[in-house]
Amino acid sequence: MSQAFQTAGDVRMACRVGELTGPTTGYAAGYEQANLVIVPKEFAFDFLLFCHRNSRACPLLDVTDIGDPEPKRSTAGADLRTDLPKYRVWRDGRVSDEPTNLRELWRDDLVSFLIGCSFTFEHALLAEGIPVRHLEQGRNVPMFNTGLECQAAGRFAGPLVVSMRPMLPMQALAASKICERFPRSHGGPIHVGDSSAIGIHDITKPDYGDPVDIRPGELPVFWACGVTPQAALMRAKLPFAITHAPGHMFLTDLRSGT
Amino acid sequence: MSQAFQTAGDVRMACRVGELTGPTTGYAAGYEQANLVIVPKEFAFDFLLFCHRNSRACPLLDVTDIGDPEPKRSTAGADLRTDLPKYRVWRDGRVSDEPTNLRELWRDDLVSFLIGCSFTFEHALLAEGIPVRHLEQGRNVPMFNTGLECQAAGRFAGPLVVSMRPMLPMQALAASKICERFPRSHGGPIHVGDSSAIGIHDITKPDYGDPVDIRPGELPVFWACGVTPQAALMRAKLPFAITHAPGHMFLTDLRSGT
Repeated sequence: MSQAFQTAGDVRMACRVGELTGPTTGYAAGYEQANLVIVPKEFAFDFLLFCHRNSRACPLLDVTDIGDPEPKRSTAGADLRTDLPKYRVWRDGRVSDEPTNLRELWRDDLVSFLIGCSFTFEHALLAEGIPVRHLEQGRNVPMFNTGLECQAAGRFAGPLVVSMRPMLPMQALAASKICERFPRSHGGPIHVGDSSAIGIHDITKPDYGDPVDIRPGELPVFWACGVTPQAALMRAKLPFAITHAPGHMFLTDLRSGT
Repeated sequence: MSQAFQTAGDVRMACRVGELTGPTTGYAAGYEQANLVIVPKEFAFDFLLFCHRNSRACPLLDVTDIGDPEPKRSTAGADLRTDLPKYRVWRDGRVSDEPTNLRELWRDDLVSFLIGCSFTFEHALLAEGIPVRHLEQGRNVPMFNTGLECQAAGRFAGPLVVSMRPMLPMQALAASKICERFPRSHGGPIHVGDSSAIGIHDITKPDYGDPVDIRPGELPVFWACGVTPQAALMRAKLPFAITHAPGHMFLTDLRSGT
């Protein structure tokens, strides 16, 4: 973990000046990391309702006013057009570009949604001696589409996406207790053990991120994941939308676990 | 309290057939009572965002799909056009009518919001021996506009409205603990004691509902109130909106305090 980026503000400034364009896992312990989804105003009600109906996967940290790139309630002074390391631009349900800022793309009809991220509680797991395998292995967290359907809202529907961290059964119990303190970051696990019970057919082949080792005696532990809205965006085939690039999160000024 | 209406379904059916047109306080113990706000689709994003930003006053129990009068997620089979005792129709920010059903008024662009209500936890207070003065005195609960401003969202802004129940200091502590078990019904009190500290100038003159007696040694205890969105609706002056009539709530099938 970098000693250079101790605070959320450090991370945002490094993004703004173009110094940081990589993933944010491990940075700025104690601050809430956030998924970003930006949609035009005409789709904003449906998307907000989707988040409300699926709040375990999509815990809302902040929603901006229409056209305003500043998330005033969570992070005054920040600029969502420049303060993330990398973005994804979606056109008709496909990724068309991965820019490092939105200066040329911003429009006055855009509404931005900041959604909690499980990176937030990984510091707390490590602090209590619970392994975080993808950090150990220098990889992105493995994420899977499940067979569990989200509650649809207007144009938005899709599978619940989960992140997975392998651990021993007793560590899973401790992790569950710790993560319940982080309701804005998906809270406790939604499933432990048999992955086929939630419709995951091959635990070695994540749909997003990287595979990690599961050692003898360990169980896969699953958390609702903020990539869930990206799966819904893909299916909704909006003419235009923007998200963060996976793993390249927005650092809010919200203190975590409080 | 009536023995006739034991379940939420009993109350809804009595409304539907025109048998019940009065307030619902005290009915159907154990079921969540709900405030109703209905707005046209074009204002639905702003209103949903207002609820999200002011969730203590506006805890959302259910939001319907556009044009659908059935709150499927909380109360399958119910009909919001007929299943409340009395409604208010708002035109340009004023109440234009108080009908007992919406059969003639329903439109395909309407979105309905069900918002938690403090009537829900009054059964639990009584069960633990804590007085509920307006029930004792056969009145509607006193409600006040405060000097605390809600977080605005688009067209919606206004004061936080609170309900007030007087009790002894020790009873206020117990009530606080009980009400924290009801987060969908505004949770614990937002203030106890000096009413001028939250901008209420005359505790004997509520802005909504009826005055109740405050006895020697008692303190006023204040809860965020689901009339808050009505105050915002009034100020927003929408061309058309519908709410429940104060005290005439929708009974959901959600079990309370769980």
